[in-house]
Amino acid sequence: MDRTVRLLISFDGTAYKGWQRQASVPTIQGILEQKLSLICNEPIVLHGAGRTDAGVHALGMVAHFHTSSPIQLPALSRGLNSLLPPDIRIIKAEHATDNFHSRFSAIAKTYRYDFHTGRIMEPTRRLYEAHFPGQFDPLPVNNCLKLLTGCHDFASFEGAGSRDLTKTGGRGSTRTLFTLRLVEDDTLPLHFSLLFTGDGFLRHMIRNIVGTLIPVGQGKISPADFSAVITARDRRAAGPTAPAHGLFLVQIYYSEHEFNIQSSTPMI
Amino acid sequence: MDRTVRLLISFDGTAYKGWQRQASVPTIQGILEQKLSLICNEPIVLHGAGRTDAGVHALGMVAHFHTSSPIQLPALSRGLNSLLPPDIRIIKAEHATDNFHSRFSAIAKTYRYDFHTGRIMEPTRRLYEAHFPGQFDPLPVNNCLKLLTGCHDFASFEGAGSRDLTKTGGRGSTRTLFTLRLVEDDTLPLHFSLLFTGDGFLRHMIRNIVGTLIPVGQGKISPADFSAVITARDRRAAGPTAPAHGLFLVQIYYSEHEFNIQSSTPMI
Repeated sequence: MDRTVRLLISFDGTAYKGWQRQASVPTIQGILEQKLSLICNEPIVLHGAGRTDAGVHALGMVAHFHTSSPIQLPALSRGLNSLLPPDIRIIKAEHATDNFHSRFSAIAKTYRYDFHTGRIMEPTRRLYEAHFPGQFDPLPVNNCLKLLTGCHDFASFEGAGSRDLTKTGGRGSTRTLFTLRLVEDDTLPLHFSLLFTGDGFLRHMIRNIVGTLIPVGQGKISPADFSAVITARDRRAAGPTAPAHGLFLVQIYYSEHEFNIQSSTPMI
Repeated sequence: MDRTVRLLISFDGTAYKGWQRQASVPTIQGILEQKLSLICNEPIVLHGAGRTDAGVHALGMVAHFHTSSPIQLPALSRGLNSLLPPDIRIIKAEHATDNFHSRFSAIAKTYRYDFHTGRIMEPTRRLYEAHFPGQFDPLPVNNCLKLLTGCHDFASFEGAGSRDLTKTGGRGSTRTLFTLRLVEDDTLPLHFSLLFTGDGFLRHMIRNIVGTLIPVGQGKISPADFSAVITARDRRAAGPTAPAHGLFLVQIYYSEHEFNIQSSTPMI
């Protein structure tokens, strides 16, 4: 009997060329499909909730697959974790309804971008935080976050090759950002996180927004300049793409209930 | 003119066989001496405040060296950081008095041991926290920390080949622990840190103490059993050596003033 299984996955993206399967380079999807096919004893195609760039990390990636294997879920989960390298972990394996799709059923996602503005990057954090040394004022950045909140055409922050219109339902580069927050770490001065929750994100969108927000915090461009970048709808107006290794896919939401519960106590 | 220079160093121990120079394997001291000798244009011998085991990390290692090079300290610091790999960073370079010795002038050190008791270790933390999955009760562990505080013979927690009596001033395996604390992370449940500040530590002492405290938190041995381990003064009475990668050398203190200031606001 065919089943749909949904996986909650955490990974360290450092050693991988991103999520998506590619011939002869290590990717998260590629390794997971290989181990799943072994355990289920049949070729498995794994569908992820979205692609992540090379070097991006995930605390709560979701993916699903169909299988006729009779394996019990706890055994599947344990078996996968024993075959996978320690930089990829299965947090949970659950049955899903047949019409569940990790990508098309998602109603919102939360990403986090971690960075440090101190002079020296601590060696033990260098793989998980971007380094933007120099003065950084949160106030104008918070003003820009207000400008970004809501439904906007984010064409200025869209990476090349972003859209496949047949898959995005023709909404072009318009997305809705529900909540954006800048948080400074309580115990580690000059360590910041930018949190983005929205109904979808264009390719490189968060990294391009971060690359434009950092100069605002550094006083190099004003919130008014930033506003003009949004309205330009032109990638050339925005700043550089921030490094991948500061970015974490934190959580994917699949129902209003889950979204409301989780967004009040964000899992960061 | 000969000068004494003191370095404050942070490193990720993952890729190194510990602090101490060894032929043909990468060590922190070995790489630092190599880069220092290049910059100072003369062979440099670097004296560290202590050895760290393979895999142990440091936020605030201190080392000193003598040189006749006229190089200015900011240039030395920048030059070193540009030559060193990103998993070793010079936080500060300062002049020291001729009688300063990074090891013999130290009056206290703080170490931190980070661990996670959840079922699954997050991939992005796996290199910097030990994993002790299962129930963990802080209360009996805190009782053991009270037993460890003060001046004791720590022979039960001493690794083989620990002592060089000519260098430890004949105090044998007696050390004084000033403060010990168990802290649970505010935002990440089941992530704990054990903090140890003392006048000195025997080889593997903290990792052996941690390896004996964890079974106390898991309810496998009682604080009374733990007390018996201390008084046994026999390594065989204690638990296993906890993994190196959870251990951080946090800070080394060189004067009463610095110690009092810093111990009231520990740099963790």
